[in-house]
Amino acid sequence: MKAVLLKQGRLRFGELSVPAAGAGEALVKVKMAGICNTDLELVKGYMGFEGVLGHEFVGVVAETEDRAWTGKRVCGEINFGCGDCDWCRRGLNRHCPSRTVLGILNQNGAFAEYVIIPVQNLRAVPDSVSDVSAVFVEPLAAAFEILEQVKIEPIHKVAVVGDGKLGLLVSQVLKLTGCDLTLIGKHDRKLALARSWGLKTARPEEANGREFDIAVEASGAPAGFETAMRALKPRGKIVLKSTYAGKLELDAAAIVIDEITVVGSRCGLFDPAIRALANNLVQVEEVVDEVFPFSNALLAFERANQSGTLKVLLDLEC
Amino acid sequence: MKAVLLKQGRLRFGELSVPAAGAGEALVKVKMAGICNTDLELVKGYMGFEGVLGHEFVGVVAETEDRAWTGKRVCGEINFGCGDCDWCRRGLNRHCPSRTVLGILNQNGAFAEYVIIPVQNLRAVPDSVSDVSAVFVEPLAAAFEILEQVKIEPIHKVAVVGDGKLGLLVSQVLKLTGCDLTLIGKHDRKLALARSWGLKTARPEEANGREFDIAVEASGAPAGFETAMRALKPRGKIVLKSTYAGKLELDAAAIVIDEITVVGSRCGLFDPAIRALANNLVQVEEVVDEVFPFSNALLAFERANQSGTLKVLLDLEC
Repeated sequence: MKAVLLKQGRLRFGELSVPAAGAGEALVKVKMAGICNTDLELVKGYMGFEGVLGHEFVGVVAETEDRAWTGKRVCGEINFGCGDCDWCRRGLNRHCPSRTVLGILNQNGAFAEYVIIPVQNLRAVPDSVSDVSAVFVEPLAAAFEILEQVKIEPIHKVAVVGDGKLGLLVSQVLKLTGCDLTLIGKHDRKLALARSWGLKTARPEEANGREFDIAVEASGAPAGFETAMRALKPRGKIVLKSTYAGKLELDAAAIVIDEITVVGSRCGLFDPAIRALANNLVQVEEVVDEVFPFSNALLAFERANQSGTLKVLLDLEC
Repeated sequence: MKAVLLKQGRLRFGELSVPAAGAGEALVKVKMAGICNTDLELVKGYMGFEGVLGHEFVGVVAETEDRAWTGKRVCGEINFGCGDCDWCRRGLNRHCPSRTVLGILNQNGAFAEYVIIPVQNLRAVPDSVSDVSAVFVEPLAAAFEILEQVKIEPIHKVAVVGDGKLGLLVSQVLKLTGCDLTLIGKHDRKLALARSWGLKTARPEEANGREFDIAVEASGAPAGFETAMRALKPRGKIVLKSTYAGKLELDAAAIVIDEITVVGSRCGLFDPAIRALANNLVQVEEVVDEVFPFSNALLAFERANQSGTLKVLLDLEC
C-alpha cells in the first residue's frame, strides 16, 4: 500500500505492506485524512517520531474479529492505552504511561491506504456527518477537551488567541457555553471567516485591556502566549492548546503576582465532537483550503506548510 | 525614627520622620518584624522598589481616628486596595489594580519604628499568639492562599518542593487537609526539623516516580520547578509559590502533553493564619534562626542572605 513516511527527518511517499489486524484490532481502509500542525512539527523533529504520519482521518472497517464493525464508517481515538492501568480504567487512556499515539508516538498513522486501530478506539460516524467533517473529529475533540478541564461560565469573557485551524475550531466550541468570546488573530481572511459564523474578532493590539477571564493560546507561537497574558484579568486562566517544539519562556513573577493559572490541554474524547458535528453546532467544511489526491501527498504537505493555509486534506479515494 | 531604607540598590539604616496617619489610617508602633526572601529579592532589584522595606510585622496601634483600635496589638494585611473597584468590593484588594503593597510597591514598609496601615487592613492578634508567632501571620496567610485556589483532597499525594521558611510553613498548612504530604528538600537540618513535626521528607532525587497529584514550588529556584514536574502525575497541578526575579523557562510540550496545570499563588487573607496560630495548628517559633536588635538590622540582612538560614527577625523593642 502507499503511505506517507517520515524517516530521519525526511518525508517520502512510499510503499509498505498492508498491516495485519491482531486480536482486538481493526484494519481500517482510509477514505480521507487531514494534515495537522502537529504533523508539520513532527517533520521538524517533535517527539522524534519515525513511521507513517497522520492522526486525523475517516475510513471504513475492512477487517476485524467483531463482525458488527465490518463495513462501518469510522474514525479512531488516537491514544492507544494498555487498557489495564489506573489511567485506562478511569477512561483516561490518553494519559496511559505505556500508550502509543496514532502517527505521533510508536504507532503508524493514517496517511496510508490502511491503518490499524484498536476496536475499543473505533467510533462510528453518523450518516449525517460527511467525510470532510469526520476528519475534523480529532481536532474538534481537542477543542472540547478544554471544557473537560476548565469551567467556562456563560458570564465569562473568553479570548482565543490564534486564528488558524485550531483557533477557529476552539472558538466555535467554547462559544457554545454562552460565554462572551473574542477570537484574536492577525489574518484578515481568517478573521472574516470567523465573523461570518457570528464570532467576535480582534487584533492582538486591541486586546490589552486585561478584561478576559480565560484565554486559550492556540497560535503555537510564544507571542501568542504574551498576547494571552496581556488580555487576562488577575486570577485568569490561560489554556495552552498548541504543542510547541521549543521551550517557552514565562515571566514567572507575572504568573505569581497576578495568580494566573496555566492549563496544558491535549487530546479529548471523540463522542462530544461527533455529536457536535451531527447536530450542526460547528462549521468545519469552510476551514478546508484544499483537498489533494493521496498520490500528491507531498505537494499537500508543501501547501500545508505555507503561511496562512487553513486545513489541507488528503483524499484516498481519488 | 530609625528605618531600613532601600535606595538605588543600596540598603541603609537611616533616619526618617515619623509618618502621620491620614483619614482611615492607623499609625502602628512596630514591635517585631521578619525578613522574607522577597525582601532579599527586592534588594536585588525585584519590583524596582525604593523606600522602607518590611511587610512581616507585629505592632501596637499608636494613633487612629477609631479609638477602639488604639493600644491594640495588631498585624496588617499588606495589600492596600482603593476600596472602590470590583476587586476590592469582592474582598480581593490584593488584586486591586491601583493597590500599593507594604514595603514592596509604592508603600513604606515595617522595618521602621512606625508604619502606616489602613484601618481596614488591621487585624487584631489574640493574646495567645506571641509576637514571634504573629510575625509569621503574613507568610502563613500566603500558605493558606493555596487552599483558596486549589482543592486539595484528603486522598491526594502532595509534594512541597523547597525546605526553606516558606516550604516549612506551606507543608504544615497543607498537611491540615489530611493529604499525604512529602516535603522535598536538600538540607539535613531543615528536613530533620520537618520530621520532628511529623512531616514526611524526601530528597529531590527520591521524588521521580510521577506519583504526586499536586506539587508546590516553594524553593524559589528553576531547579525546584523541574523537581516538581518530575514528581507530578499527568493532569497534576504545580503551585508556583515563590517570586522569582528572573524568567522561568518551561518545557511547554511537557505541560501540554501531560495536561499539567500551573497555578501562580501570592498573598492570602490573614484571618485563617491567625486562627491556625491561635489554635496551635502550626509550628512557627522553631523556624526562627536568630533575632537581631533593630539597630543591627543590616547585620540581620547579612545573616538572612547566608545560604541555609531560616527566619531572621528584627526586635524593635530592644
